[in-house]
Amino acid sequence: MHVYIEDIGKHEGVEVTIKGWLHNRRSSGKIHFLTLRDGSGFIQAVMSKAAVGDELFMAADHLSQETSVIVTGTARADTRAPSGYEIDVKHLEVVGASHDYPITPKEHGVDYLLDRRHLWIRSEKQQAILRIRHEIVDAVRGYFNTRGFILTDAPILTPAACEGTTTLFPVEYLDEQKAYLTQSGQLYLEANAMALGRVYCFGPTFRAEKSKTRRHLTEFWMVEPEMAYADLNDVMDLAEGLVISVVGRVLDKRRPELKALERDTTKLESVQAPFPRISYDEAVTRLQAQGLPMEWGGDFGGPDETALSQQFDRPVMVHRYPAAIKAFYMKPDPERPELALGIDVLAPEGYGEIIGGGERLADLDLLLSRIEEHQLPKEAFEWYLDLRRYGSVPHGGFGMGIERVVAWICGLEHVRETIPYPRMLYRLYP
Amino acid sequence: MHVYIEDIGKHEGVEVTIKGWLHNRRSSGKIHFLTLRDGSGFIQAVMSKAAVGDELFMAADHLSQETSVIVTGTARADTRAPSGYEIDVKHLEVVGASHDYPITPKEHGVDYLLDRRHLWIRSEKQQAILRIRHEIVDAVRGYFNTRGFILTDAPILTPAACEGTTTLFPVEYLDEQKAYLTQSGQLYLEANAMALGRVYCFGPTFRAEKSKTRRHLTEFWMVEPEMAYADLNDVMDLAEGLVISVVGRVLDKRRPELKALERDTTKLESVQAPFPRISYDEAVTRLQAQGLPMEWGGDFGGPDETALSQQFDRPVMVHRYPAAIKAFYMKPDPERPELALGIDVLAPEGYGEIIGGGERLADLDLLLSRIEEHQLPKEAFEWYLDLRRYGSVPHGGFGMGIERVVAWICGLEHVRETIPYPRMLYRLYP
Repeated sequence: MHVYIEDIGKHEGVEVTIKGWLHNRRSSGKIHFLTLRDGSGFIQAVMSKAAVGDELFMAADHLSQETSVIVTGTARADTRAPSGYEIDVKHLEVVGASHDYPITPKEHGVDYLLDRRHLWIRSEKQQAILRIRHEIVDAVRGYFNTRGFILTDAPILTPAACEGTTTLFPVEYLDEQKAYLTQSGQLYLEANAMALGRVYCFGPTFRAEKSKTRRHLTEFWMVEPEMAYADLNDVMDLAEGLVISVVGRVLDKRRPELKALERDTTKLESVQAPFPRISYDEAVTRLQAQGLPMEWGGDFGGPDETALSQQFDRPVMVHRYPAAIKAFYMKPDPERPELALGIDVLAPEGYGEIIGGGERLADLDLLLSRIEEHQLPKEAFEWYLDLRRYGSVPHGGFGMGIERVVAWICGLEHVRETIPYPRMLYRLYP
Repeated sequence: MHVYIEDIGKHEGVEVTIKGWLHNRRSSGKIHFLTLRDGSGFIQAVMSKAAVGDELFMAADHLSQETSVIVTGTARADTRAPSGYEIDVKHLEVVGASHDYPITPKEHGVDYLLDRRHLWIRSEKQQAILRIRHEIVDAVRGYFNTRGFILTDAPILTPAACEGTTTLFPVEYLDEQKAYLTQSGQLYLEANAMALGRVYCFGPTFRAEKSKTRRHLTEFWMVEPEMAYADLNDVMDLAEGLVISVVGRVLDKRRPELKALERDTTKLESVQAPFPRISYDEAVTRLQAQGLPMEWGGDFGGPDETALSQQFDRPVMVHRYPAAIKAFYMKPDPERPELALGIDVLAPEGYGEIIGGGERLADLDLLLSRIEEHQLPKEAFEWYLDLRRYGSVPHGGFGMGIERVVAWICGLEHVRETIPYPRMLYRLYP
């Protein structure tokens, strides 16, 4: 009976068949220890000469890494085994050969590995990251789906270049029309929230930035919820609940993967409500107290975010930024109009911004003057202005970048390992 | 207490507050009947002059469509009401005005409506479609997630133009590099299946086709599962199970929306296992018997698919197509090498193809000669060939177009209403 390694515990003492690949092999005279992987997990298969006969035993001595094999044997509990089980091999069949597999247990440079990303993802660590990514995506969707949010995906191909073209990827659309790849679905999501109340989109977004930092990809996935009849506090509550839910799910379901990554899970366990909520003013004071050259009015750079987030054992929310450094569509603070009701969530351990959002400007006249101040083309925003013309309501939301969340939860240094096929300045292959 | 209309049944006899928009209004002397919507549903609010006083009653007589309003009143069961409940209004507050809302209950042309898609989605029918789309997406993901499949999204920006550039959208990437928008994640998914066993991707895909049919968008969402150690029958079983699961979920959770669309649900209820599985040969014979000008060797056009799918009360699977009309990566039928082990699933009621897939070619030498025969650039496929060099295994999968599934399940004539912001030949706005 074919079983997956992850289900092996249900078949103890039974003869099972594993269909997978040879991950590793060592021998001690009369026994081969074969580490098999089948995508669902890793398991050690123990092949003794006595059990399989001379011919098969000798053939197995020449099996190379990543040979695809079908192994039949008995599942046996073994407390020393990482998965808790081993297989006593009765038969082994080679499905496909593998000669000179280019990724060996030795160390390789990251460019070498990225050039072979289609093979690198077979490694235990990369598999663990992708499983955690899968779990995070599912936790995010589940969080919104169980709270009455409706998935309403924003378009990828967008018409005018609303906020300047410098970081947009141009697309040659049909009949010599020009389109751009979306940077954010937010404006569309605002329209959708006016129709369906609570909505979200979750798709790829694009930034044509030449930055080569550990936090940037040119193609990344973002979830963006938006709520009608919501204010800044509702947005902060939603963001806090989402992050707690996601971290909790990974701790609940992906302990083996976190262990494979040697992640210090105590750091994740302290991600509990309430998250500290500090104003931009306070954040600036804190940075200055640390001796950083931060002046009121400026935006936080990567080092500032790192310094701030290291002051807390859980994500910190920074709210009420200078309006001048935030987008035109942010609602001004009624008590201090020079501030925008925006909010960023910074992940701990120096990971920095994972969420940005806030309450949107609902007033038509004020929005019109903001578009003028920012010298944006009003005609491109006519449809967006309609949302203020026909039953405008207070509303808000945020965007959360999935790769940054994966990097943080997995404890990775660079976002390039958080997505199956990362896209960067000089990285379009494979 | 603020409640959503969809939860009103939990609050019968209690004073509740609804935050939404005025969808419709009629009056009969001393009573206003206000149809409210809040994104979660529609409900009738009954406002009597006696209950609210002259001033508010008169003001309410001038409320126009899509005014945003906060209404407080008592929830009352009413078997005549579509939602089963009504609200007896005690107070009403106008949040945002709405003058001359451009979409009135009268008929509008589809171009007029698509130009105002950001408002059109507020209509009852469009809301119902988007909710059903949401449910379909969640059912698809749930189907795979509960069966051990790992989400491994394929890149949107792809390097070389593998299969000819005529239907690809070119993107101006950084530093004058050229990229193309993905048409399918399949090749990447094959690599992912070799790593994780059972995988899927689910994202936007793009076809630069100038076709103006009711089945085509330039930007559409596709789910693509791929399984290692799987053959054509496994692929057919998976496709059948998926479609049954998705239709069942919509019938289970979205009856009110199907009713709003006047969908004949008996047609959906007959979507049960087993789906008929007929060979391409038999399909050709059936079409010829109907008098259609179909010859063996040709691909099915839209009218052929329609004619075939109308012969069954449930989806039909057509397998084993002429290899010459299928992609280079399809495995030939060992018994008749002129056939490819491909499979299409045609939805009933004339909806045609919703799924295409099959078993992939796992043999390196045969794949190399296919690439040559198809005059494809071998260097662009080097990484893909690696999957056959290092532990190749039988594998297969398929792609299912979400918009076509939504159109079928909702009973729509055209896919343009199945996505929040459709992209077509001359449609990039809003």
